[in-house]
Amino acid sequence: MMIAKTMKTPYYAVIFTSVRTEGDQGYEETADRMIELAKEQQGFSGVESARSELGITVSYWESLEAINSWKHNTEHQMAQKSGKSKWYSKYAVRICKVETDYFFEK
Amino acid sequence: MMIAKTMKTPYYAVIFTSVRTEGDQGYEETADRMIELAKEQQGFSGVESARSELGITVSYWESLEAINSWKHNTEHQMAQKSGKSKWYSKYAVRICKVETDYFFEK
Repeated sequence: MMIAKTMKTPYYAVIFTSVRTEGDQGYEETADRMIELAKEQQGFSGVESARSELGITVSYWESLEAINSWKHNTEHQMAQKSGKSKWYSKYAVRICKVETDYFFEK
Repeated sequence: MMIAKTMKTPYYAVIFTSVRTEGDQGYEETADRMIELAKEQQGFSGVESARSELGITVSYWESLEAINSWKHNTEHQMAQKSGKSKWYSKYAVRICKVETDYFFEK
């Protein structure tokens, strides 16, 4: 996983912050699948993910419409249900407009 | 570190995504200090952080003015210089307006 090469601003970000329950319960496989599936969506622009005590996944999108379509994708909705019932004790979803960005590379 | 209890939308987020260089070189101490210092700033609303291959730190703010003041904080600017010279091989900073949020808790 690398820093996402996103488009020219403005674009949109979904910040998904989560606390996992104990045990895998099929989580890793579905999490990987959701990233692959997101990459196939119209208007997808990149994703960044890290996990310590908290997990943070940020996905980037061309428009709010693209985010809304992804939210309602059938396979994604099944994963969202399992997320609530099995994998997460808490999470937050924040939909943002990225107004400015800056990239540094050595 | 927990999921940030942010204010009513709209508010602002700074998504800081980074790839570290090898070795600590004073990084952990300064990273902890920057989180403490951020918490003291006017308009600060919360922070979430995780690190795997990538590090992702998202800080939340009441306004763009609060973000701009934090960017120009003297001690923070010294840390930014060390970040470029020592700690990071790459990073991205994205300034966002959080338009919608949703919280789930079991």
